Amino acid sequence: MLKLKVDINCDLGESYGSFKVGSDTQIMKYITSANVACGFHAGDPVTIEQTITTAKKHNVAVGAHPGYPDLMGFGRREMQLTGTEARNYVIYQVSALQGFAKVAGISIQHVKPHGAMYNTALKNEELAKAIAEAVKELNRGLIIFAPRKSAMAKEAAKAGLRVAYEFFADRAYNMDGSLVSRKQFNALIEEPAKVVARAVRAVKENVVEAVNGETVELGEVHTICVHGDTHAAVKLVEVLHKGLTKAGVEVKPVSDFI
Amino acid sequence: MLKLKVDINCDLGESYGSFKVGSDTQIMKYITSANVACGFHAGDPVTIEQTITTAKKHNVAVGAHPGYPDLMGFGRREMQLTGTEARNYVIYQVSALQGFAKVAGISIQHVKPHGAMYNTALKNEELAKAIAEAVKELNRGLIIFAPRKSAMAKEAAKAGLRVAYEFFADRAYNMDGSLVSRKQFNALIEEPAKVVARAVRAVKENVVEAVNGETVELGEVHTICVHGDTHAAVKLVEVLHKGLTKAGVEVKPVSDFI
Amino acid sequence: MLKLKVDINCDLGESYGSFKVGSDTQIMKYITSANVACGFHAGDPVTIEQTITTAKKHNVAVGAHPGYPDLMGFGRREMQLTGTEARNYVIYQVSALQGFAKVAGISIQHVKPHGAMYNTALKNEELAKAIAEAVKELNRGLIIFAPRKSAMAKEAAKAGLRVAYEFFADRAYNMDGSLVSRKQFNALIEEPAKVVARAVRAVKENVVEAVNGETVELGEVHTICVHGDTHAAVKLVEVLHKGLTKAGVEVKPVSDFI
Amino acid sequence: MLKLKVDINCDLGESYGSFKVGSDTQIMKYITSANVACGFHAGDPVTIEQTITTAKKHNVAVGAHPGYPDLMGFGRREMQLTGTEARNYVIYQVSALQGFAKVAGISIQHVKPHGAMYNTALKNEELAKAIAEAVKELNRGLIIFAPRKSAMAKEAAKAGLRVAYEFFADRAYNMDGSLVSRKQFNALIEEPAKVVARAVRAVKENVVEAVNGETVELGEVHTICVHGDTHAAVKLVEVLHKGLTKAGVEVKPVSDFI
Repeated sequence: MLKLKVDINCDLGESYGSFKVGSDTQIMKYITSANVACGFHAGDPVTIEQTITTAKKHNVAVGAHPGYPDLMGFGRREMQLTGTEARNYVIYQVSALQGFAKVAGISIQHVKPHGAMYNTALKNEELAKAIAEAVKELNRGLIIFAPRKSAMAKEAAKAGLRVAYEFFADRAYNMDGSLVSRKQFNALIEEPAKVVARAVRAVKENVVEAVNGETVELGEVHTICVHGDTHAAVKLVEVLHKGLTKAGVEVKPVSDFI
Repeated sequence: MLKLKVDINCDLGESYGSFKVGSDTQIMKYITSANVACGFHAGDPVTIEQTITTAKKHNVAVGAHPGYPDLMGFGRREMQLTGTEARNYVIYQVSALQGFAKVAGISIQHVKPHGAMYNTALKNEELAKAIAEAVKELNRGLIIFAPRKSAMAKEAAKAGLRVAYEFFADRAYNMDGSLVSRKQFNALIEEPAKVVARAVRAVKENVVEAVNGETVELGEVHTICVHGDTHAAVKLVEVLHKGLTKAGVEVKPVSDFI
Repeated sequence: MLKLKVDINCDLGESYGSFKVGSDTQIMKYITSANVACGFHAGDPVTIEQTITTAKKHNVAVGAHPGYPDLMGFGRREMQLTGTEARNYVIYQVSALQGFAKVAGISIQHVKPHGAMYNTALKNEELAKAIAEAVKELNRGLIIFAPRKSAMAKEAAKAGLRVAYEFFADRAYNMDGSLVSRKQFNALIEEPAKVVARAVRAVKENVVEAVNGETVELGEVHTICVHGDTHAAVKLVEVLHKGLTKAGVEVKPVSDFI
Repeated sequence: MLKLKVDINCDLGESYGSFKVGSDTQIMKYITSANVACGFHAGDPVTIEQTITTAKKHNVAVGAHPGYPDLMGFGRREMQLTGTEARNYVIYQVSALQGFAKVAGISIQHVKPHGAMYNTALKNEELAKAIAEAVKELNRGLIIFAPRKSAMAKEAAKAGLRVAYEFFADRAYNMDGSLVSRKQFNALIEEPAKVVARAVRAVKENVVEAVNGETVELGEVHTICVHGDTHAAVKLVEVLHKGLTKAGVEVKPVSDFI
């Protein structure tokens, strides 16, 4: 019998020069894929180099995490880009990261848009298409990280790219499979045991319990998104990794199994 | 008998979003190598994409033109970077450009540092070495543009990279082979006939007349640097290209002959 | 009998370091109010200083022209800011400009938001309110430039600020008093005689002919917005200034008459 | 008998958007003057507003802390600016801060250049003069923070500005009164009792023991610079404040006594 597998991904390399954020070295022990900031919303060249070196050392697969050109807003504010702008911003950022990967002797595994670019690409077909085509033109072997029901997943598939379906272990879900907005009081699941149970169920049964108590069909889950910016977050990821393993799920970089 | 050959290079793609500068399309007709700004001192992703597309159309070879992270100062102000910073800034910028070249179906021919990074790398071995090693780690086939007597040329050679020796056709030279500072009244040679004559002599005899009238030994000259930001500049490059051809010198991208 | 008066305003100081744009010195002869970029979408400190000095020399009233923090997009792309962000971005930019005005021995006359910030503030009450309150807290004497029928004009009035109602002489109008989108083929009125006739009519009769031929009620018009970025634009403003004067309208800074 | 007085100053407001750094609220309890980052090397408008509000609440005097336009390098890298650039960069940053102070109902007390701008202004007369003149033109009442033996202090005095002479409690001194470079192993004094003893001696006797054991004449000391970016640093400032008070020195904002 084939063993179930899942990837754990986390945003890393989000420091910018002297502005140090995150607990990258700690979180690297428990994740299998790193989404590395590329310089537009966070991440300067020195930080990128260090992050990739550290990821390589921990056998963590590296992905590009391109964002809007909005350092002041950390790429979390919607900006109305044209398709041409979005496409070229993605080419620029993913390419920059590829150079560091090459120097480190590794390859980039995936691309996951950041913040507002990610959120908008879930619904906006023009943006999703611009991102998918940029990635395809650079390297058809790159995997796109996106929720299964999203414009991003759809456009990536159309472009002939592999898609790793993403599940958010510590976020509450609406009945339609979307995430409960962070502005809501109940957006986050903080109890570790609950996070682990949801993750195991998502991987094994491909469902999650929505905020209204109903069961939401997720489809196959390839990668679980976690946060690593606080001590508690690092602890949670450690617990999650152990919980998945104990439940018989193998935690591996997504490129090993899709 | 082997025909003499020389390359003509020019800084291009120096617009930034709505800030449009340069006469890129005009100048492309007369040059053979374009130094394309990479986003730190000038050049946004949309501009880079357009510049590379235009260069390809005109059979102009493309090079990366990395600079200091100083958009407000156009990379012309000296910044004291560590070797680690310089190395990673060059990897970032050259890599970003490589992605656009790949998407356009071409390869990057060379790397020429911009502005203050260029000037400092002529004398500062640590900076020159950081640049050379960054380029070498990315792609050993890339050619470095630098004057023959410079720390940049020396460190590039040490790193095993090819170097295209550069001559400035419209700039006055000191006796030691350095350029007369732009702050001096006599820094620029503006008369077209004189510029052509100096270029032809530099290519054929490998010498130039210094400001004090003495003859300076240049060594072999592979590429002639020109400016293309004004109508007069474009006209001058046209005259230069024709003058070199008429003098029996073949004007070609430097990768064709070194 | 009271003579009719109108102000002519233009965006100026939009260079950024070595990125030189606009024909500021030429246009200064024909306008009465300058909207000076404050560093977020365009305009570095040296440019601001020069622009204010030139404006003072030409007796052109100076206004702050704050924009979104988007140099790459020239502040023309919508960014979803919170009210707190918008308020503080406006305080920052207007204050910075006030310092240069003080050093030059003049006062700032008005504030006109730039690009996407302007367009969004026409309809979005939260943004308009954030801008109005920022201006009010800095200086209750500042005048806001906005079309009469706009959230911006309404919120400025609520905050107790004076509003100069703005008319766009070279733009086509829809029946509801809004501007025809620049994406439409017929957005711009380019024929000088037509631009002058529309401006004179707007000032004297407070109406404009919409694209469908019907007459749109504008209400009082205090200031006419023009563009000055091309030679043709400068010529048009010269013609407009002369045309208004010939029609018996006095062209003066808006603070002289509202 | 007149009681001895001294000010304690610290760099604050160094966050940038989501990049949160420093322990501003903790340190505010023990300092009397805050050097607030103005947006060039750190500090976005929202951070500035919050920092000024917090300073006002804690009766901490507010100063502008202008830096080089180098966010990636936190203003710590030397950049070769012209006098015109430096002057206008200071006007821009100090003015921006003045607006927030005005909105908060307070006035700015002082100006202290940041990082490389500070270090260079200690020796470079052209830069020091540019800074002093910018401040003078904005507000002759502003106090400049600088070591007594420095080009900055000299040029500020020439410009007619008051200067608060600064002592670094946790830094080792050379025999010539300059600070031991941070690159040296013995640059920092970390033992709290020693820091307090040096500060008390500097205020009372106007001397400090240099690294070679000899006694350096400091001249009058008005303000003591401390760091507040770590938990240990905050603790040290608390101990320093108490130690000075216990030794009979009154800790007050510098504008209260010079």
